[in-house]
Amino acid sequence: MPAAPDFPGVVEATVAAFVETTPWEAIPEAVRHQARRSILNILATGFAGAGEAAIDTALRVMRPFSGPPTAHLVGRPERVDAALAAFLNAAAANIHDFDDTHPATIIHPTAPVAPALFAFAEGRAIPGRDLLRAFVLGAEVECRLGNALSPYHYARGWHITSTCGAFGAALGVGALAGLDRRRLIWAMGSAAAQAAGLVETLGTMAKSVSVGNAARGGLLAALLAQADFDGPAAPVSGARGFARVHAEPPDLAALVDGLGERWEIGRNTYKPYPVGVVLNPVIDAALQLRAEGLAWDRVARVTLYGHPLLRQRTDRPGVATGRESQVSAQHAIAIVLKTGAADPAAFSDRAVAETLGRRPEVRFVDEPERDIASVRMEVETHDGQRRTIAIAAAKGTPDNPLADEEIAAKLRTQAATAKFPGDVDALIDAVWTLDVQPDAAVVPRLAAR
Amino acid sequence: MPAAPDFPGVVEATVAAFVETTPWEAIPEAVRHQARRSILNILATGFAGAGEAAIDTALRVMRPFSGPPTAHLVGRPERVDAALAAFLNAAAANIHDFDDTHPATIIHPTAPVAPALFAFAEGRAIPGRDLLRAFVLGAEVECRLGNALSPYHYARGWHITSTCGAFGAALGVGALAGLDRRRLIWAMGSAAAQAAGLVETLGTMAKSVSVGNAARGGLLAALLAQADFDGPAAPVSGARGFARVHAEPPDLAALVDGLGERWEIGRNTYKPYPVGVVLNPVIDAALQLRAEGLAWDRVARVTLYGHPLLRQRTDRPGVATGRESQVSAQHAIAIVLKTGAADPAAFSDRAVAETLGRRPEVRFVDEPERDIASVRMEVETHDGQRRTIAIAAAKGTPDNPLADEEIAAKLRTQAATAKFPGDVDALIDAVWTLDVQPDAAVVPRLAAR
Repeated sequence: MPAAPDFPGVVEATVAAFVETTPWEAIPEAVRHQARRSILNILATGFAGAGEAAIDTALRVMRPFSGPPTAHLVGRPERVDAALAAFLNAAAANIHDFDDTHPATIIHPTAPVAPALFAFAEGRAIPGRDLLRAFVLGAEVECRLGNALSPYHYARGWHITSTCGAFGAALGVGALAGLDRRRLIWAMGSAAAQAAGLVETLGTMAKSVSVGNAARGGLLAALLAQADFDGPAAPVSGARGFARVHAEPPDLAALVDGLGERWEIGRNTYKPYPVGVVLNPVIDAALQLRAEGLAWDRVARVTLYGHPLLRQRTDRPGVATGRESQVSAQHAIAIVLKTGAADPAAFSDRAVAETLGRRPEVRFVDEPERDIASVRMEVETHDGQRRTIAIAAAKGTPDNPLADEEIAAKLRTQAATAKFPGDVDALIDAVWTLDVQPDAAVVPRLAAR
Repeated sequence: MPAAPDFPGVVEATVAAFVETTPWEAIPEAVRHQARRSILNILATGFAGAGEAAIDTALRVMRPFSGPPTAHLVGRPERVDAALAAFLNAAAANIHDFDDTHPATIIHPTAPVAPALFAFAEGRAIPGRDLLRAFVLGAEVECRLGNALSPYHYARGWHITSTCGAFGAALGVGALAGLDRRRLIWAMGSAAAQAAGLVETLGTMAKSVSVGNAARGGLLAALLAQADFDGPAAPVSGARGFARVHAEPPDLAALVDGLGERWEIGRNTYKPYPVGVVLNPVIDAALQLRAEGLAWDRVARVTLYGHPLLRQRTDRPGVATGRESQVSAQHAIAIVLKTGAADPAAFSDRAVAETLGRRPEVRFVDEPERDIASVRMEVETHDGQRRTIAIAAAKGTPDNPLADEEIAAKLRTQAATAKFPGDVDALIDAVWTLDVQPDAAVVPRLAAR
């Protein structure tokens, strides 16, 4: 690793050499498997988002600007060109923030990268192993770039999934296209010219524009570089490069130290529930109470002993829309006790209407020392009974990861909710066996209607 | 005008109301005429850039992702969809930085806005007057947004033409599409999600990606908003909105104060020469000497009394490429005295080779109080004669603007240099009479091969 990552161009050269030369054999099996899990999970959230109005509208508006339809859309019957497929599949998979999370940066790593790779792969008969390798390398740099910019970048207001995602997609497609290191740096240059996205847009359709563009722009950046479209020598570390403009100061060592030894994408996590992550332990506790037979109309009062952020973000007793309900402890507890499920349907406008006026009274007790992934929930029933549940590490956190079968079940649930008529078993099998599939495009073909 | 432009959403509502309700009749004739001059000038620089390798490559790479070809390209025979036409026409027109300049912000206002408008207009039979109105309103907000972010934004490293250009294009197309103010704010939201571009990319092809995207992204932002694709209420002034993330602090009053009374786009300027603007008075002086009959091989020594930036940016005696020569006083003086021209051919690799080793010795005398648009040039010939030329305000600056006929001549020169076979007189006439043309698309049709 270089001694002076701050010297302009050094980190780009290091990253490009890593992407160009790291063979499949040098990627540990645990990291390869995390890649398969990431792809399975992004298909699950793709099914969940594919039918959203924002995706319908974007497709309708952008379809006149699509070339010959070479690519599939997850959970949808339309065929579009690779650039639009990358855009729409990324936007749909991230639309509920139900996709994966790199804990150190809160980047959703897979949405910008995997859709760009699959769109590129369609029609090219690219072995699944090559795509998995490209995914690992692109997503690895994406997460490390996020580390280099954090916490300033997101706190200032950039949507870090979108900004860093453009680089991940550019380098991933660059790896799949076999670009040499000079062209990989050019691809980073055109990614830097497109890196955009603001936290202000969260909760609106406009967020999907930057997430979709991260995938589309990264794909095009790699294709442009392949055709000798050049860029600056130091698009990230230069005086007016991406990292210096977007962080204060950037920690460029985080981008390159231990590259190929420590794997950031190996730390990826998957959401069990379509809610703000601070609510996860609360839902775990409510699911446990429900499994013990507690009926929701018996609950009079709930006390949550949690990290202060739990109170700050989720003490919302009167939410009236599905979107708001994703950060309401009151609704989450009520709907889980009522239905036993914590899936997208439980956080829909309809579900919210069902609990409105019938939610338990919730008291929050701040415990600043408590891990944010844990909670203690005390429930008091109308007839004066009490029950306490303690969750040490919520489902989906690094200490309590989803099992492979739980990710597969997430996909099955989302596909069923979307009334997907395809062969879900075959799709799941194709992902688990992607590294021996002769054509990576088997995945988008099986995922489309 | 609002009393509290810092309150989130107020400036967006003000800007949107301005774009929605300002009629053609409320735009002063001087501003309308500046719009015609801006469009004529962008066609000139479009011809200059259309044949560049970056444009060839971008077209080749992106054409498979173009829908049905409804739109023309300036100076080129290909037809593409409106989104790609907006991208390529914007990128080409700005590629040499030979397009217009809003002096207070150094934004090149027309490249992102006019190509998006013309691409939208093709096939819709939109009156030229409507397009001119939309151009004025979009470009006005673009320049004012730049004022609100300056000088922090560009100094920090954002390519201000690209970032603010996305808003100009979105609002311009929004005006042309007749969006109401709610949808104009949504269009600003999707523009904010796409606003990108870094100074680090200048001098490379990657710059063209952000300029092209400003036009394309702005066009799509308006089309999405028209189809009810929503966005945040305060995409610019919100706590994590564009202005607060991209300036420290933004001057939001500059965006709205005197809107509809003072016209920033009325201050637009046009470059007579394809060089860094600090060289303009030097070229004026050299042209005058050449007109007086001074032969270049008679010149032994030149002394330039100028603003310190003239020395800092242009004291480059040994430049070896066309691109570098655009900021070399030594080459500029030599080539102008030799050929009598200061056009793109005079700053090509070939022209540089002609002056290499034969450039005059140039001495710079810093005069910090001197206006940057002025220079005093002393020339000493090999036989000991001396001649002094003083330029008070360089051609193309606000105090010495290009005449209408000079802009038309710039277009004629660029079209001729590009061996454009079309009817240049008809094109120039169509721009001067755009407000009475029944179909604005007459301009892109006449400008294409």
